[in-house]
Amino acid sequence: MTELPKTRVAVVGAGFSGMSAARKLHQAGIDVRVLEARDRTGGRIWDPLLEDGRTVLLGGQWIAKKQTRMWTLGEEFGLTPFTTVRTGDMLVGTNPGAFRIPQKLPDDIELDMVISELETMAETVPVDAPWNAPNALEWDTQTLHTWIINRGGPELLRKMDNAIMGYMSLPEDVSLLHALFYTRANGGFGSLFSMGDENAHDTHVFAEGAQRITEGIYNELDNRVHLNCPVYAINQNKEGVHIEGGSFSLEAERVIVAMPPALCARLHFKPSLPAARNLLTQRTHMSGRGAKFVLMFTKPFWRENGLCGIYVSETGTVTIAIDATPDHEKWAVLAGFVSDKGSGKDLMDLTQDDRESAIIELLSSAYGEQIREYVSYHEHDWAGDDLSRGCVTVFSTSAWTSYGSALRKPVGRIHWAGTETATEFPGQMEGAVRAGERAAGEVLAKYLG
Amino acid sequence: MTELPKTRVAVVGAGFSGMSAARKLHQAGIDVRVLEARDRTGGRIWDPLLEDGRTVLLGGQWIAKKQTRMWTLGEEFGLTPFTTVRTGDMLVGTNPGAFRIPQKLPDDIELDMVISELETMAETVPVDAPWNAPNALEWDTQTLHTWIINRGGPELLRKMDNAIMGYMSLPEDVSLLHALFYTRANGGFGSLFSMGDENAHDTHVFAEGAQRITEGIYNELDNRVHLNCPVYAINQNKEGVHIEGGSFSLEAERVIVAMPPALCARLHFKPSLPAARNLLTQRTHMSGRGAKFVLMFTKPFWRENGLCGIYVSETGTVTIAIDATPDHEKWAVLAGFVSDKGSGKDLMDLTQDDRESAIIELLSSAYGEQIREYVSYHEHDWAGDDLSRGCVTVFSTSAWTSYGSALRKPVGRIHWAGTETATEFPGQMEGAVRAGERAAGEVLAKYLG
Repeated sequence: MTELPKTRVAVVGAGFSGMSAARKLHQAGIDVRVLEARDRTGGRIWDPLLEDGRTVLLGGQWIAKKQTRMWTLGEEFGLTPFTTVRTGDMLVGTNPGAFRIPQKLPDDIELDMVISELETMAETVPVDAPWNAPNALEWDTQTLHTWIINRGGPELLRKMDNAIMGYMSLPEDVSLLHALFYTRANGGFGSLFSMGDENAHDTHVFAEGAQRITEGIYNELDNRVHLNCPVYAINQNKEGVHIEGGSFSLEAERVIVAMPPALCARLHFKPSLPAARNLLTQRTHMSGRGAKFVLMFTKPFWRENGLCGIYVSETGTVTIAIDATPDHEKWAVLAGFVSDKGSGKDLMDLTQDDRESAIIELLSSAYGEQIREYVSYHEHDWAGDDLSRGCVTVFSTSAWTSYGSALRKPVGRIHWAGTETATEFPGQMEGAVRAGERAAGEVLAKYLG
Repeated sequence: MTELPKTRVAVVGAGFSGMSAARKLHQAGIDVRVLEARDRTGGRIWDPLLEDGRTVLLGGQWIAKKQTRMWTLGEEFGLTPFTTVRTGDMLVGTNPGAFRIPQKLPDDIELDMVISELETMAETVPVDAPWNAPNALEWDTQTLHTWIINRGGPELLRKMDNAIMGYMSLPEDVSLLHALFYTRANGGFGSLFSMGDENAHDTHVFAEGAQRITEGIYNELDNRVHLNCPVYAINQNKEGVHIEGGSFSLEAERVIVAMPPALCARLHFKPSLPAARNLLTQRTHMSGRGAKFVLMFTKPFWRENGLCGIYVSETGTVTIAIDATPDHEKWAVLAGFVSDKGSGKDLMDLTQDDRESAIIELLSSAYGEQIREYVSYHEHDWAGDDLSRGCVTVFSTSAWTSYGSALRKPVGRIHWAGTETATEFPGQMEGAVRAGERAAGEVLAKYLG
């Protein structure tokens, strides 16, 4: 059992939120130490460097210029944002096979009306207190699925599923109120789900990988980040906080827990947290739609065939694939996601080699035989990763209205960060940074009086 | 770090499920060790003995004769089941105040029809595989709340809430499919929710407290139960299982994890569990309607006033109170539950003394001033208890149909017990015992196979 040097503020989690919190405290001259379960920083952002100089972006990667904190951090750490080419037709998978459609879809009046209706509803949801929306109770007692079915039946559900909400979660997994909160806090449906649109939140990618930012902060923090240190228990009393892992302990004055709510719930707390906090974290869960694969090529061959590289499927093992080729074009990239439902779930039961073969087989029936000329295949099953257990957090029915006020409320010496606690861009890297800086601000206020 | 003696089978959790599993293995001559985070056995059953000889039943307490394993265990350990007197009027709280109604409510044709409809639906749900119900997808994508509102609007919801479903959870917290599964697996609505009915599952109580059973098994197991040993991590490989806590480690050949799914999710696993298991446990949560209080008296004064002792309220801080006086009548008991919503939630923010005063104040306006003659007040906030975090487990929408098959499926050397994994009487002590014995049977089959 190693006793780490006593610190003023401990931060649990070296993802974007925890590292942003630690950086802000460190810059303010407050002694801080970060405890991280993994052997790397970045959390759900993971961009390993290959020996030949290529970078594989295996986790969250998309940002937008309006995400000002991320944009600035990119500049500070010398990263190069690029915009992906989005000209050409899309592929719609028929499993196997696919047909081509223009990327600019013909207007669907019903869909436009429904989205406009949801936008109007979303505008009534206060992002800092969704439970205060005038219709909060009505919307939090039903799933998004129920609302869509009541509004337009299975046909509307089919249209909306992958095209619009699939990005976040499945409509049956999520409270309608949460879907509206998430939409508004991220700048509206147009911003969240219109791939290639200028207003979208996914217009840019850092060519070097966003993880370079948390690695940069790691260096700034000068040996104050402890990797391979999973935290198991947080005990607090009048004097301070005692943090325990399997192989270490750490004394601090305060602690910022920078993990998704569902993972915060893994920790043991003494004294117990208030009931509302315990009940809230159990009513959030992480989307399983995040088994990501990356196929790398020498060139984006699909562009020569008049394709933009986007593949979508409502029924297949691969939900979506997208061109993520950096604009230096030293290599080309198709990034895709495997569904965790139906046939996609079966795919996840295969060995990695068999899964690779099955994905190539499926995509060859859509992109053509050239797909077989890929240089390398990479993947990460975020839901099967014990330290993440999924991708984007969603709130189950009744979580916000019953216990939402416990989300950010400090408990004694414990403060809560994590992208889920953000009121702007929750679920994104941008939200993580803002939430981390907000939590650091809470702690600073205690010291600055 | 204490290294405990290597064992064949480790059991995590000394509640009814874990202790039943351990007992079955021990009786079969298999070396077993139980690891328990608390300083006592029993889990969500906790029946402390007072110095003057009284027993306070602070957790689950009700059983029925048809719960054959519990009935037999009671006999084996010399416990005395009693039936509570249920004659007299009920009180319906108006906060403050109350009015009296006959305990045998007049027939409500609408309510009877709805319950009959739900029973018919429930009969189509296979208890061992709810996802195979013909309408599983339709029922698992909506909350019970949605179904009730669609069926009969807010008026029906009001009728059903506390009277029928409140016992399990709030209708907005639970998938309709789960409510149907839970109902069927517990013998139908009549069995679950008809207080005082002969067919109900709550006809009897062990006067000495059911916890005496797990204490009895503790003695049988002869120093093989390790209290104050919270498990943090389970690592497995071809040779066996390595279990880690803060202060101990244990090597075993196999492990039975006997905790609610939401608490299983607290553990660290190496290698990672399959995605489906991680996603399932996050989609279950524990009901917060379990802050229980016990008021003890010298005699059940309410009976003299023509009351059966039952108090129900749809809006108040106290959801329900009930006569739980043992038939030896050496003392009298009112057991009650504090709601975790609305004004009940505020009540939980008070100190214990202030909460006691508030409850007495409220109940005096219902039962009359004699309530102030209570001998002692006891309570336990199960949702605010770090090691339980709630009461009865419910499944959120889409949990069963997306990932239900991961509930009992062993993962390598890890087997799953806990009342939630029972196909008969889940959520009850009886389900816990049956699930524990089923898991022990799985392990035995490996050795005898």
